[in-house]
Amino acid sequence: MKVNGEAMRSIWPIGEAAVGVIDQRALPHRLERRVLRSTAEVIEAIRSMAVRGAPLIGVTGAYGLALALRADPSDAHLADSHRVLLASRPTAVNLRWALERVMARVATLAPDQRAAVAWAEAGRIAEEDVELNRAIGAHGATLLRALHTKLGRPINVLTHCNTGWLAAVDHGTALAAIYAAHDDGIPLHVWVDETRPRNQGLLTAWELAAHGVPHKLIVDNAGGHLMQHGKVDVVLVGADRVSARGDVANKIGTYLKALAASDNGVPFYAAVPSPTIDWRIDQGLESIPIEERAADEVLWVQGLDRNGEPSGVQLMPAGTPVANPAFDVTPARLMTGIITERGVATPAHLADLFPDQRRAA
Amino acid sequence: MKVNGEAMRSIWPIGEAAVGVIDQRALPHRLERRVLRSTAEVIEAIRSMAVRGAPLIGVTGAYGLALALRADPSDAHLADSHRVLLASRPTAVNLRWALERVMARVATLAPDQRAAVAWAEAGRIAEEDVELNRAIGAHGATLLRALHTKLGRPINVLTHCNTGWLAAVDHGTALAAIYAAHDDGIPLHVWVDETRPRNQGLLTAWELAAHGVPHKLIVDNAGGHLMQHGKVDVVLVGADRVSARGDVANKIGTYLKALAASDNGVPFYAAVPSPTIDWRIDQGLESIPIEERAADEVLWVQGLDRNGEPSGVQLMPAGTPVANPAFDVTPARLMTGIITERGVATPAHLADLFPDQRRAA
Repeated sequence: MKVNGEAMRSIWPIGEAAVGVIDQRALPHRLERRVLRSTAEVIEAIRSMAVRGAPLIGVTGAYGLALALRADPSDAHLADSHRVLLASRPTAVNLRWALERVMARVATLAPDQRAAVAWAEAGRIAEEDVELNRAIGAHGATLLRALHTKLGRPINVLTHCNTGWLAAVDHGTALAAIYAAHDDGIPLHVWVDETRPRNQGLLTAWELAAHGVPHKLIVDNAGGHLMQHGKVDVVLVGADRVSARGDVANKIGTYLKALAASDNGVPFYAAVPSPTIDWRIDQGLESIPIEERAADEVLWVQGLDRNGEPSGVQLMPAGTPVANPAFDVTPARLMTGIITERGVATPAHLADLFPDQRRAA
Repeated sequence: MKVNGEAMRSIWPIGEAAVGVIDQRALPHRLERRVLRSTAEVIEAIRSMAVRGAPLIGVTGAYGLALALRADPSDAHLADSHRVLLASRPTAVNLRWALERVMARVATLAPDQRAAVAWAEAGRIAEEDVELNRAIGAHGATLLRALHTKLGRPINVLTHCNTGWLAAVDHGTALAAIYAAHDDGIPLHVWVDETRPRNQGLLTAWELAAHGVPHKLIVDNAGGHLMQHGKVDVVLVGADRVSARGDVANKIGTYLKALAASDNGVPFYAAVPSPTIDWRIDQGLESIPIEERAADEVLWVQGLDRNGEPSGVQLMPAGTPVANPAFDVTPARLMTGIITERGVATPAHLADLFPDQRRAA
């Protein structure tokens, strides 16, 4: 999407021996580009969370493997590089998937062919992600256009966490719909949940400001009140995992917004690429494990100090008892629909969009 | 309540020429006591929010007027002092009420009698607040004891914002029930909502730790997830205003927790002294005005920096569009009951507890 009028992605190839990325740790305060020229630099960027977001981590890892093969295309180095790249974020499913896809593509090739093929494969993974997100955005924009036509005025969208192009390669998921609608001339305004404890909403506010989409930052507590007063026309969120019946695991706090939407007759959608749907799981609340994260995410808040330098403040003393569940599950009964690359479906009809994948599960 | 075993109130007379208070700006990091010896010092303490919480501001103001009369008991000085004290927090209803009560008590007295009578009246206002809160705590504890008996295990209470002794003179409202139950030996654990944007939950966590009540700090997003998993047995909150039919205006985010409680069959109570009930208003959502506060409350977070010094960090650049509604209204249909100094009632039977006041409205 755009940053002050200039088209930008979260990762871009530079020739065939380097990739450019955005150091996301400096956002929302400064836009810092970095060039990664080796597997070691790729690993450091993933480990330090300079790059974040499941699809982006996968693509970055794939380019990292291609860079490894350019340095040394031997079987031993391929296996070693795969191992160390995978270890940079061991729980990232997309990273594992992307590395395995590149491995499978090059393993049977002669070593001198591997680097170029791996490089092209990393690029294809990136382009496929962009296409998936573009399709989600188009379906979501159709829905927003219908809402605008019905209401006959600018529409107010509420979103939670960051589901934008920074977490993907381009577009994003829920934000893809917002960008597509905005670029199509549908007048809209976005309420951006701060999304404690990690405040990913700040990245959303930065993205929207950079692309020129009207928005306001709010604390996570405010959304229900706004819905009670008719100030939210639709809620769009992403998802970390969706069960076959349409239960949606997403950033902690999503469930509370879904309850408020239901209580006030506000439609509530999750925008997800189909690989996020776990067809093997039906009941999300019982079956999707919820990660409990470190107390320091709650106890410390990052920002700029009064001199404009990156800094953190501690809210309570170390040792303060804390619970920090990272995700919650919104039951399908609270979801108006799921927006996928194949279209929009109610939870009950989600499987109809994917007869092929449903059967395979 | 207690701080590390020592009984403490938020304000205490020192002889008849000074009052002690806690500088609440240093909490939850340091317990700093201050002595206020003049009206000017009282005004500065109120204006700077060293003292905060509606009942505490009222009592502090009353002592401030008594200190003014000790310096100069003339009619002119009485009127002047009343005016400048009231202007220190112009929207504080309790401050206006407490100052008028002292004024009414001393206005017709000979000047040389005024200081002592005003001092005694300020003390009575404080004691009446303590008694009101003690009664609320006793009724709330009865309810918690019944829940403990029913469940046969330690009970988990969730609370929002700060409703403790720091905001009152002693006990508090929702926290009064928790303190009374804990002191009666009912085993309980409290989930403490951080309560963005001003993070008053940190004061709650500090109070509970100081008194020895088991608790955990959570972000405002987490409560729904905890309720879905059976980890909350009851929700206790305070209120800024309650309508005659039992709609509850309270800190922003209360409504979201009430929705989650209702969705999961968790009882939800507001603990309020009866002056908080506005018998002239029936429909809270339409009739209770909601204050929109400054963007900087959302954009800046206060804490200690890495050197342990009080500091703040800026989350987003100045000028970032922000909305910051300070309160929301939880409709009566989501309230299991209202805990008052006269007992606990469902919203539909709230007026039965107050036939006298209901008639007067």
